[in-house]
Amino acid sequence: MSDQKKTTDAKDESELLGLRDEIDRIDGDILQLISQRAKCAERVAEVKLKADPEHAVFYRPEREAQVLNRIMAANPGPLANEDMARLFREIMSACLAHEKPIEVAYLGPEGTFTQQATKKHFGQWVKSRPMPAIDEVFREVEAGAVQYGVVPIENSTEGVVNHTLDTFITSNIHICGEVELRIHQHLMAGPNTKRDKITRIYSHQQSLAQCRKWLDAHMPHAERIAVNSNAEAAKRVQGEWNSAAIAGELASELYDLDIIESNVEDSPDNSTRFLIIGREEVGPSGDDKTSLVVSMRNEPGALYNLLKPFKEFGVDMTRLESRPSLTGNWTYVFFIDFVGHTSEENVQKTLASLKQTAADVKVLGSYPKGVI
Amino acid sequence: MSDQKKTTDAKDESELLGLRDEIDRIDGDILQLISQRAKCAERVAEVKLKADPEHAVFYRPEREAQVLNRIMAANPGPLANEDMARLFREIMSACLAHEKPIEVAYLGPEGTFTQQATKKHFGQWVKSRPMPAIDEVFREVEAGAVQYGVVPIENSTEGVVNHTLDTFITSNIHICGEVELRIHQHLMAGPNTKRDKITRIYSHQQSLAQCRKWLDAHMPHAERIAVNSNAEAAKRVQGEWNSAAIAGELASELYDLDIIESNVEDSPDNSTRFLIIGREEVGPSGDDKTSLVVSMRNEPGALYNLLKPFKEFGVDMTRLESRPSLTGNWTYVFFIDFVGHTSEENVQKTLASLKQTAADVKVLGSYPKGVI
Repeated sequence: MSDQKKTTDAKDESELLGLRDEIDRIDGDILQLISQRAKCAERVAEVKLKADPEHAVFYRPEREAQVLNRIMAANPGPLANEDMARLFREIMSACLAHEKPIEVAYLGPEGTFTQQATKKHFGQWVKSRPMPAIDEVFREVEAGAVQYGVVPIENSTEGVVNHTLDTFITSNIHICGEVELRIHQHLMAGPNTKRDKITRIYSHQQSLAQCRKWLDAHMPHAERIAVNSNAEAAKRVQGEWNSAAIAGELASELYDLDIIESNVEDSPDNSTRFLIIGREEVGPSGDDKTSLVVSMRNEPGALYNLLKPFKEFGVDMTRLESRPSLTGNWTYVFFIDFVGHTSEENVQKTLASLKQTAADVKVLGSYPKGVI
Repeated sequence: MSDQKKTTDAKDESELLGLRDEIDRIDGDILQLISQRAKCAERVAEVKLKADPEHAVFYRPEREAQVLNRIMAANPGPLANEDMARLFREIMSACLAHEKPIEVAYLGPEGTFTQQATKKHFGQWVKSRPMPAIDEVFREVEAGAVQYGVVPIENSTEGVVNHTLDTFITSNIHICGEVELRIHQHLMAGPNTKRDKITRIYSHQQSLAQCRKWLDAHMPHAERIAVNSNAEAAKRVQGEWNSAAIAGELASELYDLDIIESNVEDSPDNSTRFLIIGREEVGPSGDDKTSLVVSMRNEPGALYNLLKPFKEFGVDMTRLESRPSLTGNWTYVFFIDFVGHTSEENVQKTLASLKQTAADVKVLGSYPKGVI
């Protein structure tokens, strides 16, 4: 018996050694290929710089999206498509930084979700700079101090980021891309709170709804109290020894609460959406979205007139958001996202038709759909 | 002339298309190889799990260090060794996470340098959990709630992190690795401060020294005032319209200062060192360091007796740090780092000799030298 065990161990050991050798061989091949790729990127930069030393652009959002989409389509496994795309994002980021690192301004401070989104979209080699306010991100991009900016636009728990929307109305910036981050919810309480003594749980109503199953299973007797925001929930819990909050990690740090249980959301689709903004328009990648601001006069049938061209030309609207007009002259302002690129014929027809009925139509940008 | 330009453009265009095709082909090959690598890692996990379902360990610090060192030695360029190693770190991180993500506790909050160090060492796929204090990181590791912990140990500006050293004395945790992060210094001031009006610059003395050349060249007329810490410098500047501070990015956020100029340090070797801690000892990688705590009685020749064995057996000491003994019984406690692994003969001889003269010798761990 002992002998048999030994034989199996020896067999295992030799298989492990063989696998290790194979991994080393594969790594050597990957090393050569990444180096070849970096050499190609070097040559691309040379050609572009020779053609236009002043305005050579090395980073093309549509090209990156195409590469990632192609990689995911051809991915044989076992790694998930998202993981493989993230690896290629880093390979592209390293190759690009070898030519010229991308400089990006984002809504700071450091350590926020917007910084995470910046790295997710541009890779670890990006040079990112935190800005204290959304308009300052816009300003840095407009002034040419950075190539791109990253701002939050939509949170599945708290809705749209109105300040970002409003800034688009008055700015000449283009949307060049989008990126989503998954946001986790945690149960948190003060350091002296015992889990079995918790009788009240505060959170935003949507967060409570998102964690309902977990709460039913694990805290069935605690009262659930909806408050205005998750940050307010965390703040309230500070003064109460028998209550807990459901909120994001940042709130636990801000209000010095301990995380009792991580990731208590029932479904993992709680996400925040960010936009990449830049000075240049982005060509079609083959899988694009377009964002518009449309002003409509406040008259009967305005919304119907707005929606009609999309239906007529078969353009798929993915978001419609209305905002009070800042000029206050009795118009509505709508933010619209739809599938397609302004270079496509049905999109052009839709826009032409919209322009006939709307007070104003402003294309914020066509850009590749968020890849990972 | 115009015609000639056109021909060049067409030639450039066709070369760019060719390069793009070549990059696509290379990407396809990299995709296949990474997938093969992930399959090998899957098989390694199967074999290990079959042999020991309870204690199978998928992450081996010494093996990772060997892979990275081999990659850097074989790197043909043009990417820098550090960039290539970072890419392979991510490839390993993704393959490992496909089997079982590593869970790591670090000194929080999120967004700190310790989190950056955690991601640098374990890659983006690590599951990391912020802890409010250094001893809690130790406790999580000891309790088995996480596999590894990451704590700061040394800052080239502000010296050693004594709290981490002290925790090692009373803990049974092993050091499994080290990682360095480069820290940048910035010139910062309040939002109403004009750069040409700055007459005073506050910072820690070491930071002022590190930025001396930059200050001589760009702010020759501003008075330099040394204060206790960079954070204090930033705080002082808050109330003064004609002064600036040199400090890290976090200080600018904490005290709402604008960064006037980034990376003003003269040499880029301003770094902070972090330790990876775990429950298991790490085998030799071929390029290792060992950390010790040695207690010596307060008697004549103690320091000489401490140093002698290292010299005798040719062991290269890289750091010697003395701390007051916490037990207060008239002994000195020394923290020592040296090059080598406890499995090496000269190291074993050194330790045996040390044990004859020292009151106590505790090996904190042998671990691979920080690779990137």
